[in-house]
Amino acid sequence: MSDRLIYLPLGGAGEIGMNAYVYGYGAPGKERLILVDLGVTFGDMDTSPGIDLIMPDMRWLVENKHRLEAIFITHGHEDHIGAVGYLWERLGVPIYARQFTGTLCRLKLEEAGQPADTVRITGARPEVTQVGPFTVQFVPISHSIPESAALIIDTPAGRIVHTGDFKLDGTPVVGDAFDPVLWHQIANEGQGVKVLTCDSTNIFSPHPGRSEALLANPILDWVMAQKGMVVATTFASNIARLKTLAEAGTAAGRKVCLLGRAMRRMVSVGMETGILTDFPDTIGPEEATNLPRNKVMLIVTGSQGERRAASAQLSRGRYLGLSLSDGDSFLFSSKTIPGNNRSVIRIMNQLSELGVDVYDDSDGTYHVSGHANRPDIEAVHDLLKPQIVVPMHGEHMHLREHMMIAQSKGSASIIATDGTMLDLTGDRPKIVDQIETGRVYLDGTQLIGAMDGVVRDRIRMALNGHALVSVIVDEEDNVLPDAWVELMGLSERTRNGEDLSSHIEGELAEFLEGADDRTVRDDGKMDEAIRKITRQVAMEEIGKKPEVTVIISRLMAD
Amino acid sequence: MSDRLIYLPLGGAGEIGMNAYVYGYGAPGKERLILVDLGVTFGDMDTSPGIDLIMPDMRWLVENKHRLEAIFITHGHEDHIGAVGYLWERLGVPIYARQFTGTLCRLKLEEAGQPADTVRITGARPEVTQVGPFTVQFVPISHSIPESAALIIDTPAGRIVHTGDFKLDGTPVVGDAFDPVLWHQIANEGQGVKVLTCDSTNIFSPHPGRSEALLANPILDWVMAQKGMVVATTFASNIARLKTLAEAGTAAGRKVCLLGRAMRRMVSVGMETGILTDFPDTIGPEEATNLPRNKVMLIVTGSQGERRAASAQLSRGRYLGLSLSDGDSFLFSSKTIPGNNRSVIRIMNQLSELGVDVYDDSDGTYHVSGHANRPDIEAVHDLLKPQIVVPMHGEHMHLREHMMIAQSKGSASIIATDGTMLDLTGDRPKIVDQIETGRVYLDGTQLIGAMDGVVRDRIRMALNGHALVSVIVDEEDNVLPDAWVELMGLSERTRNGEDLSSHIEGELAEFLEGADDRTVRDDGKMDEAIRKITRQVAMEEIGKKPEVTVIISRLMAD
Repeated sequence: MSDRLIYLPLGGAGEIGMNAYVYGYGAPGKERLILVDLGVTFGDMDTSPGIDLIMPDMRWLVENKHRLEAIFITHGHEDHIGAVGYLWERLGVPIYARQFTGTLCRLKLEEAGQPADTVRITGARPEVTQVGPFTVQFVPISHSIPESAALIIDTPAGRIVHTGDFKLDGTPVVGDAFDPVLWHQIANEGQGVKVLTCDSTNIFSPHPGRSEALLANPILDWVMAQKGMVVATTFASNIARLKTLAEAGTAAGRKVCLLGRAMRRMVSVGMETGILTDFPDTIGPEEATNLPRNKVMLIVTGSQGERRAASAQLSRGRYLGLSLSDGDSFLFSSKTIPGNNRSVIRIMNQLSELGVDVYDDSDGTYHVSGHANRPDIEAVHDLLKPQIVVPMHGEHMHLREHMMIAQSKGSASIIATDGTMLDLTGDRPKIVDQIETGRVYLDGTQLIGAMDGVVRDRIRMALNGHALVSVIVDEEDNVLPDAWVELMGLSERTRNGEDLSSHIEGELAEFLEGADDRTVRDDGKMDEAIRKITRQVAMEEIGKKPEVTVIISRLMAD
Repeated sequence: MSDRLIYLPLGGAGEIGMNAYVYGYGAPGKERLILVDLGVTFGDMDTSPGIDLIMPDMRWLVENKHRLEAIFITHGHEDHIGAVGYLWERLGVPIYARQFTGTLCRLKLEEAGQPADTVRITGARPEVTQVGPFTVQFVPISHSIPESAALIIDTPAGRIVHTGDFKLDGTPVVGDAFDPVLWHQIANEGQGVKVLTCDSTNIFSPHPGRSEALLANPILDWVMAQKGMVVATTFASNIARLKTLAEAGTAAGRKVCLLGRAMRRMVSVGMETGILTDFPDTIGPEEATNLPRNKVMLIVTGSQGERRAASAQLSRGRYLGLSLSDGDSFLFSSKTIPGNNRSVIRIMNQLSELGVDVYDDSDGTYHVSGHANRPDIEAVHDLLKPQIVVPMHGEHMHLREHMMIAQSKGSASIIATDGTMLDLTGDRPKIVDQIETGRVYLDGTQLIGAMDGVVRDRIRMALNGHALVSVIVDEEDNVLPDAWVELMGLSERTRNGEDLSSHIEGELAEFLEGADDRTVRDDGKMDEAIRKITRQVAMEEIGKKPEVTVIISRLMAD
């Protein structure tokens, strides 16, 4: 069989988060592979209580790692880089990234006790990286973190442009501007663009995106208008925004203090790598406490309402000696990601209780998105004239909308969600395989499968409560009738005001006293019967069917 | 001491939901009381897993029920009426409401096995209800459910206008229009308005609210443009919207089918009470399955992504014989309440997977709010010229913003959140007491306090998992060293791939073998030591500190 070009998203397609896209070229089943990005997404109480980080299931790639040439990281956002420290070890191939992104990668590997020198810092186009059948170039593109890159992946089957996350920003304040001339060249070299794998995040935003530089004046005006202490929060990685905020503070005669580990780290990596220049001088929190309130601006982490971040801590009271009060002002220079609304609103209300005036981006003045909107995406289609468009970085509805736009413009297009392998060799994309994929949870220090049942059990305990029953069977296979019941997460009182544990114990004693020898000798039968009685009694008495764990202890003759 | 007029919110002030406001008049501590509204709010996985309904803590009012004259219900939304079936019994006083609202109240009481005739159907102003020192009138006002009413509460200390939920809609399609002449009268009778207790929900919406009637044309155009089956969802209680949707469907040559119990109930109560006339004929789901797809319009429950509602069921596949597919269209004629985003987005994506085109209100075409926006609220302040404005029906930030607007217009105003008792007798509101209040959860069939620890334990099990340890002490106070450990919601493998339960059992055996007599005889000491070891081992091995339940069984000599 002849060689083919394949595409296989393992994360990021059919969801926004945990990006991981595989490309392959070669004989079917023997393609040489590269991986683009290796990100995480975040857990939530609804579907993954107790889970901090979620990563793509890499089983397929690990099984095929002898075919894997390299990993390319487009930019330093957690949903593109966050799993490097946890999953690189299983893949073991070099990581290519530009300077700033590569430095963040190295920090992650170091923290995980992995060899940081596996990261090979790579220059932007025209520098090329040759791995197997792929010739890869990093193309600077604007986004909400410096040094975001699209990848040009040239293969024997033609040119792929993988956009990564991008927007069309000619004045991004920090980092690379979008350069239409460069992209025009890319579109017109050789046979042109065969495949455009393209960011779909903002496909439903109907108006052209706005430049980061547009925020400088409104933010300066806002800071100038405030009378007390000023606090602003944004994504730690949005270094351009940090600079805009800090410059506004300085111009308004205030000293700037950065709070939050992630933010200080981003600024320091930005300076080290030369990405960030002319950042205003900052002061520490102790110095900030000693200045008059109207001479201070705090720039803090926690724009998404994260419980342990600086903004949440300030909203709850004192943080590093600093506290907010009547007359102070707080700006969310950010968009709330769906699902985080409740947390952000909670902080806003807590600030309101302190007497702080809260400002957000509800009228679009203090934030711009890092992603291309629909007209911008269309402009990129028009510029690159790809034969095939593969929508990525979106939920199903984003991918579908993007596909329809691409088709209306004359490109072939298809929806490929995580696990769907496409053959891109011909004129039209073809689905050639469906790989079993999914999610892996970081739980404490362990990686566990999303389907392992651990999290399912936690959700069940959270919804239904947990009843524990301990039963003892003596040396002669006589069951002791006083079963012991402990309840956790369940109302202790029955509808008649009795104690629920005692009530269940009573019902179990009745059963145990009458249980025949066959039942008593059989752990499975005992377990089933005890579980059933416990659930029935709880349902009758308090209207809940708890999870039940039964421990049967059999005493041994000495 | 002289008589005073008091106000005490028990729910709805400092939150949006579970409204319950007390007014009182009389000698301090002996005021005669009325309660306005008795609503619920809904649980969520983050803060109240396993809880369906949340109600205000009525302890204070129950303790003072000998002083309570009556309950007045402003309108039939769950956050104003939902707790009637659960809490009325504890209060035992008559409920006053208008026809439609009262009918909904009676249904709730009947379902709860309470006497429905406690509800006294009351006509609109000029009809008056005299209870104790209060003379109360129901004043028709527009909202997103028919027959919403503001209350005029005349007291010896002056007139209170309690707006309930409202908007200024001159053409509300169903129910009462806002009548400025009527309100002008109310403002100018007698001494005018002393206190305006006012809805704050949309205080941050800067533009004047839009009329329900404006939706008819866009919705008709939308239905006309669709080629396959058409589905629309909105709040079941928004009867005006149901009518607009159904009329659009009929005008477009489609038969209309209502899906969802709540929706059919609202329409039927609407027709019974004469509120709803000229509602287009509807068909049942069986008939709908037999018609061509382009001749059917479904109007369904579940606009907030509720798992068991019709829209969620349709998004997951077949429901009552009906299923959606490529070429069908689905309209969310609704706003997503913060916190429900994830659920709604999940349904949108599932519909997208079925090939259904999804439309929502992101550009403001297919939905209008039921609440007054900032300019509308200001208009009401201007119209009523109240001496005192008490902002209600809002989170803290809404109340605060509303207070500042009122003050800027020359009214006295104050923030009073749940539990704060105001004295409204004088020119300015005064805080005179802080009542202990809170939330009560409906858990299964039991009402439990939010602070009882039940839900806290569920959250802890969900975040940390649960380890159960069973230990047996024999007749001679010798502890049997083979402790038994069961894990729930915890990874079973240690970092070295061992079985975690066995590993903990091993560590516990070591401790139990060496434990001295004093420890073994003391349940408290045993429990503490076992718990500590279990948590330590789990932390070392998997990085989690589980909840631990220890059961110590002491065998008795016969």
